[in-house]
Formats: sequence, structure tokens, C-alpha cells
Amino acid sequence: MPLNQPSQAEGDFVLRGDVVYSGDPLTLRAFPDAFLVCRAGKSAGVFTRLPAEYSGLPLEDRRGKLILPGLTDLHIHAPQFGFRALGMDLELLDWLEKRAFPEEAKFSDPSYARLAYGLFTEAVRRGPGTRLCVFATIHPEATMILQDLLEESGLVSLVGKVSMDRNCPASLREEQGTVETWLALSAERKYRNTGPILTPRFIPSCGDDLLRSLGKLARSRDLPVQSHLSENRREIAWVRELCPASAHYAGAYRDFDLFGGGIPTIMAHCVWPEEGELQLIRERGVYVAHCPQSNTNIGSGIAPARRLLNRGIPVGLGSDVAGGIHSSIFRAMGDAIQVSKLRKALAESSAGAPAGTAAGAPIGEDDLRPLGLEEAFWMGSAGGGAFFNTGSFEEGKEFDCLVIDDADLAAPFPLSLRDRLERTVYLSEDRHIQAKYVRGKRIL
Amino acid sequence: MPLNQPSQAEGDFVLRGDVVYSGDPLTLRAFPDAFLVCRAGKSAGVFTRLPAEYSGLPLEDRRGKLILPGLTDLHIHAPQFGFRALGMDLELLDWLEKRAFPEEAKFSDPSYARLAYGLFTEAVRRGPGTRLCVFATIHPEATMILQDLLEESGLVSLVGKVSMDRNCPASLREEQGTVETWLALSAERKYRNTGPILTPRFIPSCGDDLLRSLGKLARSRDLPVQSHLSENRREIAWVRELCPASAHYAGAYRDFDLFGGGIPTIMAHCVWPEEGELQLIRERGVYVAHCPQSNTNIGSGIAPARRLLNRGIPVGLGSDVAGGIHSSIFRAMGDAIQVSKLRKALAESSAGAPAGTAAGAPIGEDDLRPLGLEEAFWMGSAGGGAFFNTGSFEEGKEFDCLVIDDADLAAPFPLSLRDRLERTVYLSEDRHIQAKYVRGKRIL
Repeated sequence: MPLNQPSQAEGDFVLRGDVVYSGDPLTLRAFPDAFLVCRAGKSAGVFTRLPAEYSGLPLEDRRGKLILPGLTDLHIHAPQFGFRALGMDLELLDWLEKRAFPEEAKFSDPSYARLAYGLFTEAVRRGPGTRLCVFATIHPEATMILQDLLEESGLVSLVGKVSMDRNCPASLREEQGTVETWLALSAERKYRNTGPILTPRFIPSCGDDLLRSLGKLARSRDLPVQSHLSENRREIAWVRELCPASAHYAGAYRDFDLFGGGIPTIMAHCVWPEEGELQLIRERGVYVAHCPQSNTNIGSGIAPARRLLNRGIPVGLGSDVAGGIHSSIFRAMGDAIQVSKLRKALAESSAGAPAGTAAGAPIGEDDLRPLGLEEAFWMGSAGGGAFFNTGSFEEGKEFDCLVIDDADLAAPFPLSLRDRLERTVYLSEDRHIQAKYVRGKRIL
Repeated sequence: MPLNQPSQAEGDFVLRGDVVYSGDPLTLRAFPDAFLVCRAGKSAGVFTRLPAEYSGLPLEDRRGKLILPGLTDLHIHAPQFGFRALGMDLELLDWLEKRAFPEEAKFSDPSYARLAYGLFTEAVRRGPGTRLCVFATIHPEATMILQDLLEESGLVSLVGKVSMDRNCPASLREEQGTVETWLALSAERKYRNTGPILTPRFIPSCGDDLLRSLGKLARSRDLPVQSHLSENRREIAWVRELCPASAHYAGAYRDFDLFGGGIPTIMAHCVWPEEGELQLIRERGVYVAHCPQSNTNIGSGIAPARRLLNRGIPVGLGSDVAGGIHSSIFRAMGDAIQVSKLRKALAESSAGAPAGTAAGAPIGEDDLRPLGLEEAFWMGSAGGGAFFNTGSFEEGKEFDCLVIDDADLAAPFPLSLRDRLERTVYLSEDRHIQAKYVRGKRIL
């Protein structure tokens, strides 16, 4: 990962409060009135009694508050933030043409980029996320503005200047060499928290030469990659036409060496994976960004998140603004649970294939079992956070943390820590975040 | 409707701002910088220039703010508010037995009722709703506490002491005569804004004698009725066993004279309506409370809201807390749109029957078309509001109104009034409500 290590300078300290984090997809670790220790920007663990060796550290007393890991958004389009929650009545390919592309074209103007990315950055700074993987636009200058703003915010991010050179308006067509220009500009800035990520938009908008050159860059410069995979059935059919020699959509990325296997890779969506794709994703260690709200809003379907988890594929959550309307990963957790319930209810009501079933992918009974709180919370914290070595309070993880004042989410009876987490996932708003730490530094 | 008319005493006034309301399910009426006139608790209309006859009225200047009708929640369970967003992992019948019934049993204790209903009432007072149809529990005393609190809040509500006497814990079994006792208590209070509504829980929990007596009460005392209809397939099969002589679930209510035909009636859900039920609903003028989030959370499915609208059935929205987690009808509007998109996406992916298809109900192509903003906003305002003669600013409608300060939902480009409404539906929180009027009286 092209991010520097957290610096020692942030200081060491102890947070006292009600600590909850995810041990694995099925296990919450909950510690009422516990001590969470930060050393050099990393977690030194959670303790029910403060060990003597840490007794001299500054203690931040947050008793009664919920202390959770910072959340990771594995997939968000910063230039689309401006038109989130507007005109949500189109499916993917029409939506790209009519809404996303015209708005993204405006980012050729740096002053527009400064305005729009300023609104975006302030919104994610105030939310529960501490890490994000961001699509920008094709414009190097606007992308640098976004990177500067994110660096200032204290959030940790990987930002991709988008690459695309076919099936798009002329104004959004990449010229040769712009990726290298942008990478050079990024390197000059010597950011601490902001790294570049190669970002071919998706196969339909990238010609073979462009994909090949990005694959080579990823290997030679040790850069991560993000893109979209198997989101919508019209799109998948189109990729089949565009890449007749590839086994499937995932195979097309692999054929250009843009699909894991030593290259840290995130693929958004996977709503309609074929069996061969699932195997390739797993073999190559590719992360899937599950974006339930976007898949709903632009009518793509319901991704088989349970099946991905069952296969041992690393899965995190993405808000996918502006396919998704809400930039909070708490909302994405709730959405993931809800759509998984509909996936089961509708599969059972139908004699046909359930959602997310493509040729050759067998559906086990358990593949339809809805996600629970544990799995959704895991995906949005530890699951996606693993891409950045954060998302839990296991010793050695980078210290990203939220302090939540959930007093006004109380019930007329006592709540367990699990109950309070569930309420926070479904009901909290940004105003409930009392403090936010990234790599040990308080940014909110 | 057993509600008194709004009083003249609230005074007459004019609100100036950006007015939007629903003309019909497909039409928004939007008036930038307009004058909305309230006379004697009713709307006197919206004017782009203030007519001379109103020029002497007090003017409340809300220029730049969005002025919308108050929203109506046609279906909410007040005693379940305390456990909303907790343990959302059960389907309907298990959820009733394990979560809803044990919590409702606590309302035999008036002090618990005061605590829990106090939290509920304060939450709905602060939200965008101005009218609500509420299920309480079987307990007359606790129900009176809820009615007192709602009356104090200034909201307008119909509240039902729940009736049930079979297939439920002994502690929640209705004794004969308690409905009459409760109706007598309610009449004594001389409420202005709070009326009683007969509330058989649903067919499985009400024996024939109880249903028959409620039907007689509805006719003889001119009382409205609310209940649940065709929510979950296990439930529907159970009703078929319990009422073998009735044509279907809706027919069972009709056979006890609890189904419209001069009795104002609301039935929640209708996720799996048969063709005969749709015809009966329409013939008898029964309102359907569409509760998309609850249907998702407890795994019921996706109600065919488009088909109900196409048939000319009156449809409003319900939060159905605590099957639903969120008590805001703005959220219900967004959910209604989103699940309608999934209904289409999943029907198209399957060779089998789409969601919401039961025996004999033909699906037209248009039945799968997702709901748009217009239809969702209509259902949550004018559609459900029609049950109370409110929900729009047409002349003569009771004056319920929200003033929304949406400044922090701005975009980096100008927004139309429709855009601002769409953002408000998807993104607003209670804090965006700057003022709320019910029957011409400001309550927030």
C-alpha cells in the first residue's frame, strides 16, 4: 500500500469507555467500561483493567460512551457527491450517460472541483468513516485538489484519477500520459494519509491499450487498483462482447493484470458473479466492495454477500455515492442486512433462480441466509478496514476510533452493548459522533 | 371520523416560502416564494401573489425554506417503539412471539407505559409526521396514558386499544367488555385531536366472537377500524385454516363487517394480495398502509404498491415501528421507491413469479415499474393524509405543514424545488424541521 506508516508524534493515550469491535464475521467483542490503549498510532489492545505499564499515559474518560472502530468506505465517487439523492430513476448505463458523465465533465474546471470536493470532504469528515477508497474524475488537476483536501481533513484515503478512453463523451476521454503526470504530482506532495490508486473506470470505458498500460504500472510502481465488476446484467453482456477472449468479466481484468495476485485490488459490486469469477476473486485475494444501496437505487439487484463470505472472499462495504445516496457506512450496514432479507424472501417466493445467480454458480441453502448484525458490522469495520490494516482494536491495528454518544437512543429498559451497537448502526446520525480518531490523531 | 373539527381559535395567518405539495400521485405542485394561507385551521390555498383579502393577516416569512404538508403515518405500534432496531433477525410470527408480545405485556404497568409512551410521543412530535394511526396494547389504562400524551403533543392521532383473545400469551388476552370500558374513558376526556379506532390485532389472534362484536361496535358507534392484512405467507396460510368459510384473508374481515363499506378502515401491508382481495379492497374503499421497511426487516417480501395504485386503491405509508426501525415517513418514502426497484430487478432475473404475486392475481407489465418520487411523496402526504382530510394544501384541507431548512443539503449547482424535495425525502433528519403546524397550530 503506498501509504506511509502512522507517525509516532501523535502520542500515546488511553480511552476509557464501552468498547465494541468485530473479532471475525460472526463474533463481536464487547467490553463494558474498558481501556483502549493507543501507542504510536496503533492499538495496543483493550483491557478491562489498565495494565501498570500504561498507567502513566493520558487518560481520556468517555465512560458510558460507545467506542467503536472507524469505518471504511471501500467505494465512493467523490465528484458524484454533489448530485446524490437527485433523479434516482435510471438504471446503471442510462444513469452514467445522463447524470454521472455530465457532472464529472464539470471537474475540468478547478474552481468547480474546489467547491464540490470541499462539500464532499467536509461531509465524510463529519461521518463515521475514517478510511475511504475514492474515484475522482479523469482530470489530474481536480484530483490533486481532492487529494489536498482529504489530506487536510486527517482522513486516510486512496484516491484514483479515473482512467477511461472509450464509450464516453469526448470531454471525459483520457489522453495518453495523464496517469503518469498525476502520479508524479501526487509523489511531489509527500502526503502522509493520502495515496494514489489506479482506477480504470470499468471494462466498457477502457480500451485494451489503456488497460494493459495500467496493469504494467500497477506491477512496476507497486500500486493498488480499484474498479467495478459484474454490477448489472446489461453491462455484463456488453463486457462479453468487448472481451470475447476472456473467460468472464473478472477474467478480463485478470488478462490485463489488474486483478489481485500481489496487486491490492478492490472490485465494487459483484451482484451477478459467475462461479469462475468467484473462484478467481478468491484465488487472487481481490477485495469485494459490497454496495447494497447503490445496487438497489440503480436497479442492479442484490449481491450475494453471504455467498462471498462463505467462500472466504474479503468483503467490505461501499457507499457508492451517488449510486448510493448515503455516505455513512452505518447506513450501508443496515442496507446490507435488509437487502439480504429480501433476497431470501423473494427467492423463496419464486420458482426461478434467486437474485445473484448467474450461469454455473450453485446456490447452497446457506447462501440465502440473511446477514446478521455481526456480519454487517464486520464488513463495514474489520472487513473493509483490513485493506488498510485497521477496522478493529486487535493489537497492532492502526488506531481509528469513534466515540459515540448514544444517550438519546436509549430504551425504556437496559440495553446490552450489542443492543447499543445495533441501534447505532440503524439509528445514529453524524451528530452522535462525539470524537473521531484516525491513526491515533483526533480529527473530530 | 371521531375527531372534532379544528378550532377557529388558532387564528389565521400566512406562510411565505417555497411551497411544494402533491396534486395527485403523478404530479407535484411547486411554487417558489409563494404565500400559503391558513384560515381557521384549514388551507385557504397557495398564491404566487398574496390576494388583498389576506393582506391584513400576520405573515410568517420563511423565504428560502421548503414548505411541505405534514406527513401521515398510517400504521405504527407505539409500545414497540422501545425495542425498535433491536434483534432484527426474526420473521413475523417468531418475532411476535419472542419480541413483540413480551414487551407489550409490560404495559399492564401504567408507570412503564408512562415512561415508554413518553419516549415514543416525544420522538414522533419531533419528526415530520403530523397524523398517525396507532396500535397500543390490550390495556385500557396504558392506552389512555398514550392518548393523553398524544393529545398534549398537539399531533392528531387515532389510537387503538388492541383487541386479541387467542393464539397469544394469557397476559395479553382481552377480557370481555374492555373495549367498551376504554371507549367510555376516551369519551370522558373530550380530546380535540385524539380519537379511538377499533383495533383487532389480526385474524389469527382474534376469535370469531370478538371479531363479530367489534364489527357491531364499528357500525353502531361509527368508529374506524385498523388491522393487518396478507403480510406474510405463513400467516396467510394460517388464516385460511382459521377461516375456512371465508373467500380469503380480506374476506374474513368483511365477513365480520370490519372491512370498509362505510366504516373507515386501514389495513396494513397487503404484501401478498389475491386478485379477489384487491377487488374487495377497492370496492369497500379500504385504505392500505404500505410499510416497505417492516416488510423488508421481518422478511415478508415487497408489497405490490404500484399495482395497488394502478387499481385506484387508496394507499398511504406506514412506518410500522418496530417491524420498521425508523419512525419518519420521509424514510418510508425512500424505502418504498427502493424496494419497488428491487421488485422489478428480481422479477426480471427470475423465471418464476415476481414478489407480491399470489394465486390468480395477474401482473401487468406496468405493475413492475418502480415508484418514482412523485408517487412515494404522494403516498406519505396526500395519500395517507386523505384519511384525515389533510396532506396537501388544496383549499379546505386541514392545515398541517412542515417548514424545512434544507440549506445544508445544498449542491454545488442550483436545485429546483423538485430536487430539494427529493433531497429532503432521502437525506433530511429531524433537525432540518424548523417549524411544524398541525391544524393551523404551531407545535414545533
